[in-house]
Amino acid sequence: MTVLPDALSADERYCADTFNGAVASAALSAAWEAGLLDELERARFLDAHAFAAGNAAHLNTLNAVLLALASRDIVAFDREKMHATPGPGFEEALRARGFFYWLTAGCAELFAGLPRLVRDPQRAQGGVRRDARAISIACRTIARSFFDPPFLDLIAQAPIGVVADLGCGSGDRIVMLAGHRPGLRAVGVDIAADAIAVATEAVEQAGYGDRITLVRDDVLALAAKPEYEHVDTLTCFLMGHDFWPRENCLKTLRRLREVFPNARNLILGDTCRSTGVPATGLPMFTLGFETAHAVMDTYLPTLAEWDALLEESDWEVVDRRMVDFPAFSFVYRLAPR
Amino acid sequence: MTVLPDALSADERYCADTFNGAVASAALSAAWEAGLLDELERARFLDAHAFAAGNAAHLNTLNAVLLALASRDIVAFDREKMHATPGPGFEEALRARGFFYWLTAGCAELFAGLPRLVRDPQRAQGGVRRDARAISIACRTIARSFFDPPFLDLIAQAPIGVVADLGCGSGDRIVMLAGHRPGLRAVGVDIAADAIAVATEAVEQAGYGDRITLVRDDVLALAAKPEYEHVDTLTCFLMGHDFWPRENCLKTLRRLREVFPNARNLILGDTCRSTGVPATGLPMFTLGFETAHAVMDTYLPTLAEWDALLEESDWEVVDRRMVDFPAFSFVYRLAPR
Repeated sequence: MTVLPDALSADERYCADTFNGAVASAALSAAWEAGLLDELERARFLDAHAFAAGNAAHLNTLNAVLLALASRDIVAFDREKMHATPGPGFEEALRARGFFYWLTAGCAELFAGLPRLVRDPQRAQGGVRRDARAISIACRTIARSFFDPPFLDLIAQAPIGVVADLGCGSGDRIVMLAGHRPGLRAVGVDIAADAIAVATEAVEQAGYGDRITLVRDDVLALAAKPEYEHVDTLTCFLMGHDFWPRENCLKTLRRLREVFPNARNLILGDTCRSTGVPATGLPMFTLGFETAHAVMDTYLPTLAEWDALLEESDWEVVDRRMVDFPAFSFVYRLAPR
Repeated sequence: MTVLPDALSADERYCADTFNGAVASAALSAAWEAGLLDELERARFLDAHAFAAGNAAHLNTLNAVLLALASRDIVAFDREKMHATPGPGFEEALRARGFFYWLTAGCAELFAGLPRLVRDPQRAQGGVRRDARAISIACRTIARSFFDPPFLDLIAQAPIGVVADLGCGSGDRIVMLAGHRPGLRAVGVDIAADAIAVATEAVEQAGYGDRITLVRDDVLALAAKPEYEHVDTLTCFLMGHDFWPRENCLKTLRRLREVFPNARNLILGDTCRSTGVPATGLPMFTLGFETAHAVMDTYLPTLAEWDALLEESDWEVVDRRMVDFPAFSFVYRLAPR
């Protein structure tokens, strides 16, 4: 007597894959945070029993996480021996771990709350909460992996003296820049006190306290400050969409010229709203990114909308790198027009 | 200039499908709770603009939910016109909606907390929380759709006078039974005060207050009560695994004989731990069910373990119906040995 589901129809298999994708997504975030992904990348093998003992992990949960990863081919998992090895999907899942963490740890409450949020046009119950700490961890990883390389490439030949990083978050980018360029000075600007606190610690730990200043300020409503006067290069990553809608964005870009009178470069990197892809073809991140911003009523411009707006703005695109992971993303170098 | 991801590799596509599965799973729960699934089932068409206006829904979120469903072929969605129709995966997703709701609404906090839980062998910070209301809604739908039909079939010819439903939850099953059998009396037993409150309301609304009694009691530690004396049929659905491990289960089954001295039937329905299926072949629900119980340190027996244990118990299997959705599930009719 068996009840093996060995005769799943294609529709049943596809639907179960949707469900298993949700479990595996949460498992991937857990596997990253617990160090499983690092261990699998390094040793190409993981003994769950030994790992749990060595890392004070909960063995039953660890096994469940590995089974969930195996359900989506991220690992191969021998349930009897509790041995895991990288599966055919391991490298891609490892590359995308920041997006999964953004989704399942950073935006967990938003997605769990979708049933309430869809029926709540007034956002009566306090609106949408996200986990700022998890989002910042996710965005740091995403920026390092996918936006820093084209960014560094774009500024490779540029003489840069003083940088202001708008929306600096954890401070990771300015610390990285200070490491790359011994003479460089930087100002990190963020609206969140928590971000400023984390960035202050990162700057101190790196020993750049004399070269990096942190300022709590609202990038969408900046006014002149002594710290801003000598800035020659502005950087702004993964927050440009917050400048929109269109008229607001034009105003904010204009104000940057006034607030930073000596800025010769604006390096703008962001992810845009998707276009021209059928729903079943949506690539990594896009669907989560667009759903979260729809729920939060934040307008996401397309790349074409960005290009058209920049044509009319006080800044001119002088160089560009297109980013295809995450898709629909760009890093532009702009100069005052 | 485009950044269309039209050249995704198979690995990229597969990994994006894992991610999109997580978004679509949350969207499916939202679509059910907001009435979108009912409307699509009824009218085979949904105008998002009209639906949002008529149901005080948030249009941006509604559109995002429909796009997420479209990413997994549950609907076909025209983003320009905001029109949705059932997609190739609609019927299966509709059938499985209770499992998705169990996962993304009922167990949201458990899965979002996996990164913490895997590294917390002592469960120091209060352990694992689930949303009892959402779980009860999910389980009611699952029981109605998949366990009630074989259950009713099993008892079709049985003379039943007084039923005790162990772990009665919302009271849905005993109300259903009272509706099917005009002379039947029932006792609903549950450990949760919330469940008793919900069940009391359901019984009153149905007008069965004179035929149904509700008792707050721990099914795992029952003692004789006047309400239990005349019970001739016990029912116990989706909680039998809580009787385990093995020795506990044998004791609990033995105690049922003592506490219910006149019981001639025990109808036991449950879902078992999977066996013999590769990780990528895991069917609907199994992976979520097993992950949640692993995290909670609840032992899940296999069907073979159930069968072996029942052979030794004070109850004998006299009839059975195997359930293949959810997989690895059964409804047994047991009689005192």
